[in-house]
Amino acid sequence: MVTGCQDPHRLSVLGLLLCVLSPSVAHAAKLLLVPIDGSHWLSMLGLIQQLQQRGHEIVVLAPDASVFIKEGASYTLRKYPVPFQRKEVEESFIALGRNFFENAPFLQRMVTTYKKVKKDSALLLSGCSHLLHNKDVMASLAEAGFDAVLTDPFLPCGSIVARYLALPAVYFLNALPCSMDSKATQCPSPLSYVPRILTVSSDRMSFLQRVKNALVALMENFLCDVVYSPYASLASEVLQRDMSVQELMSSASVWLLRGDFVKDYPRPIMPNMVFVGGINCLHRNPLSPEFEAYVNASGEHGIVVFSLGSMVSEIPEKKAMEIADALGKIPQTVLWRYTGSRPSNLAKNTILVKWLPQNDLLGHPKTRAFITHSGSHGIYEGICNGVPMVMLPLFGDQMDNAKRIETRGAGVTLNVLEMTSDDLANALKTVINDKSYKENIMRLSSLHKDRPVEPLDLAVFWVEFVMRHKGAPHLRPAAHDLTWYQYHSLDVIGFLLAIVLTVAFVTFKCCAFAWGKCFGKKGRVKKAHKSKVH
Amino acid sequence: MVTGCQDPHRLSVLGLLLCVLSPSVAHAAKLLLVPIDGSHWLSMLGLIQQLQQRGHEIVVLAPDASVFIKEGASYTLRKYPVPFQRKEVEESFIALGRNFFENAPFLQRMVTTYKKVKKDSALLLSGCSHLLHNKDVMASLAEAGFDAVLTDPFLPCGSIVARYLALPAVYFLNALPCSMDSKATQCPSPLSYVPRILTVSSDRMSFLQRVKNALVALMENFLCDVVYSPYASLASEVLQRDMSVQELMSSASVWLLRGDFVKDYPRPIMPNMVFVGGINCLHRNPLSPEFEAYVNASGEHGIVVFSLGSMVSEIPEKKAMEIADALGKIPQTVLWRYTGSRPSNLAKNTILVKWLPQNDLLGHPKTRAFITHSGSHGIYEGICNGVPMVMLPLFGDQMDNAKRIETRGAGVTLNVLEMTSDDLANALKTVINDKSYKENIMRLSSLHKDRPVEPLDLAVFWVEFVMRHKGAPHLRPAAHDLTWYQYHSLDVIGFLLAIVLTVAFVTFKCCAFAWGKCFGKKGRVKKAHKSKVH
Repeated sequence: MVTGCQDPHRLSVLGLLLCVLSPSVAHAAKLLLVPIDGSHWLSMLGLIQQLQQRGHEIVVLAPDASVFIKEGASYTLRKYPVPFQRKEVEESFIALGRNFFENAPFLQRMVTTYKKVKKDSALLLSGCSHLLHNKDVMASLAEAGFDAVLTDPFLPCGSIVARYLALPAVYFLNALPCSMDSKATQCPSPLSYVPRILTVSSDRMSFLQRVKNALVALMENFLCDVVYSPYASLASEVLQRDMSVQELMSSASVWLLRGDFVKDYPRPIMPNMVFVGGINCLHRNPLSPEFEAYVNASGEHGIVVFSLGSMVSEIPEKKAMEIADALGKIPQTVLWRYTGSRPSNLAKNTILVKWLPQNDLLGHPKTRAFITHSGSHGIYEGICNGVPMVMLPLFGDQMDNAKRIETRGAGVTLNVLEMTSDDLANALKTVINDKSYKENIMRLSSLHKDRPVEPLDLAVFWVEFVMRHKGAPHLRPAAHDLTWYQYHSLDVIGFLLAIVLTVAFVTFKCCAFAWGKCFGKKGRVKKAHKSKVH
Repeated sequence: MVTGCQDPHRLSVLGLLLCVLSPSVAHAAKLLLVPIDGSHWLSMLGLIQQLQQRGHEIVVLAPDASVFIKEGASYTLRKYPVPFQRKEVEESFIALGRNFFENAPFLQRMVTTYKKVKKDSALLLSGCSHLLHNKDVMASLAEAGFDAVLTDPFLPCGSIVARYLALPAVYFLNALPCSMDSKATQCPSPLSYVPRILTVSSDRMSFLQRVKNALVALMENFLCDVVYSPYASLASEVLQRDMSVQELMSSASVWLLRGDFVKDYPRPIMPNMVFVGGINCLHRNPLSPEFEAYVNASGEHGIVVFSLGSMVSEIPEKKAMEIADALGKIPQTVLWRYTGSRPSNLAKNTILVKWLPQNDLLGHPKTRAFITHSGSHGIYEGICNGVPMVMLPLFGDQMDNAKRIETRGAGVTLNVLEMTSDDLANALKTVINDKSYKENIMRLSSLHKDRPVEPLDLAVFWVEFVMRHKGAPHLRPAAHDLTWYQYHSLDVIGFLLAIVLTVAFVTFKCCAFAWGKCFGKKGRVKKAHKSKVH
């Protein structure tokens, strides 16, 4: 059944009809899913559930040391052995938030981050390598007769599996580092108004911001090599031919991108890019009695929802106390997802919970504001439910997401390391009391929700499309078959320039010759004559 | 009611539900339609009917000398006076086909075509100017309180009206001359694999074809100026500010493009481009008794449908006889839409009709082939119904359409002026008897029809979206606010180059200075010393 069948009022028309017809309309197929552990996996769950309910068989392929990827009712979990423990992965997730809050000097933090990225990358690469070299697992996958691979290409392990099994692939992602998504889809991405990730620029950049964007793009090329070259080597080895990661990824049939042009800035796209931003926020359940009671007790001031996402749940005590102090300064009841120890100064209006039904709470009419780390999930839940945001971005694309909401006047961004208790309290008061924030987020919300097909139904459609047609080669641009200089027409420009220059040169020479013939001797004769006269 | 409500078996799920709910789901709005006379108008009719059935009020604004645009049940026709007669327009349409078949030498034909284009352009421009200077009409339009303008921007008259009335505009088109659609949407269009219109190239071009593509693109820039500059002057005068046609058109909220990536080659697109290729072929009626009888009498060999489109119905007698001869050589019954005098050699298997229900006939299982001028309408009806085609392109984008179907192996293209009777007969036998043609067109058909939303419903959605939200500014790329050198980052590149060169120069000078300091005197001393020794 289509997501939201439980609540027909919130359904798209296509969804409503699919509720009645599904799963009978779907041609049951077999899908191999190669996810990435962590928040990336969580964002895939809705789609998997939906596909299973439409009658498809889904096999999830994951390392046995996975933390978030567990057995589930919607899929068969196929684990493979890796040379590391679940504890190590867990520790790496916890370190994400801890490193961020370490108040170390800039240089020390850079070194820590570099070491962490290097260590994590090596861990993930070794996991991928172990899978690809596991003959039993790979042979059984080849025999299983899958119709397609659905994968998150943030790490290209699933991409290599798809190529190895000669199966069409659907990618499900937010964005890739080093603009690899643009490169692999041959999508033009003009530097002048498409901000590179992590630049925290909008699409309207000053001259210096455009310079920065160009420099970041230049650096990306080198970084890409460092990040992706081990996977290129692995792919070349496994597929027994030289292959870059760009070429590897270019074979994806359809790219399901968790974005849209309400959050993101409009830019060129390609026909095989499908935008499914907000894919998980249509599905809303009624609040449990516990949360219903909190909301009802909040009175006329309503509530504020506060979460730093699934990957960060503890913060240093000093920062937690600062935040607790700020939350005490507003009249709203604050529901704070926090698993750390209770700050001693926690005000009466603040309730700590180990987990909260974020989307359900944001959808409640009494919710006045949302304090978020501005991960793409949270941002879309904020947009979808029309709740103004105070954004405390931590890492990755969170700064960029915050910038996008801030430029639309629907939220305020704070630097969580530098902000004071007053800054947070003032930001909250601003987004709650200044009506423009509510108006702007409601405008974004109405634009975001007004679409011909719900994003989840669209994602299901395209996964099924690729399974039905064994790919989507008609959406693959011919650009993939050109060299870089052909793509940019440099050979054509060179050829035309050569012709123009040759013609110009020959014309000049002819003219010079003709000039010489007509006036040359005469001139000399005259000169000679003149000199004689003198 | 959504198109096709009469035949629920052929409906998309969204369409089916809209059948039940419409028009109650639509917020009734008022739409001003500024069409272009001829086949362009005919392709809009389905959409207009659909919008009216969803409860919207539609006013069609047309010159009183229109030929094809007549009173209709779905809209109110608002005519305005123009300084030419209906007869002149009619004559211009007839001349389209007549000029093509005139077997004059190349140069003479070029001169005739140039004169015709110049004359027609002047006619259309004068009509547009008369509308914009008609104070009564313009004032009454301003007072009418429209929510949006729907127009075909092939001539930018509707675009000027929309800007004058400060209304959001939706464009409905196939493609624009001089790549104006790409320019006005700021859509990148790489010369290396996006063939320019009228080049009759595919997306996989040889080096020389890419050179041709580049030269055509260069020429387009000059042609554009000639074609569009009178409209730029008119717009600047009416809107009282300097305005190019590109800037004028860039204000369109949504571009409904009658293409898709089954017919067209995949290329970069923009978020406000919506592809509605095949918009008119879902709607199929049962055959009338007359045509039903023809089809039933055709026996096991079935029928061939033949039409050169709504704009050409007569061809020279000699050519008609050649064609009649060819048609007599195949065992199929041929239904030929032809209003000229009956060729004396017409075979028994060929039936001349003044009009035929093209899409309904193509949808009949007994139809074996389709002889078409490969206008975009006919091509989509062929694809939609899975009928292999013999294409006789005449003018405009018809050659390009034919090329697209030919490269997909779903049809054969002939030069109607040069082909012999045998060529046509052989082409027909090939597409009917060589199974690959049927297989290829069926593959295209299944890809074309497998989409999340029917193109007509999608077009309706976006027109209503623009009326609901008073435009779609969130889909407008920031590229529109950049100069051409900013867009291409030339200022940034210049700045970075200047820095690099300065640094290199200063470094060089410093090194040279240091070298001089360290070794200069020593060297000279040594030299001096040496010379003394000698």
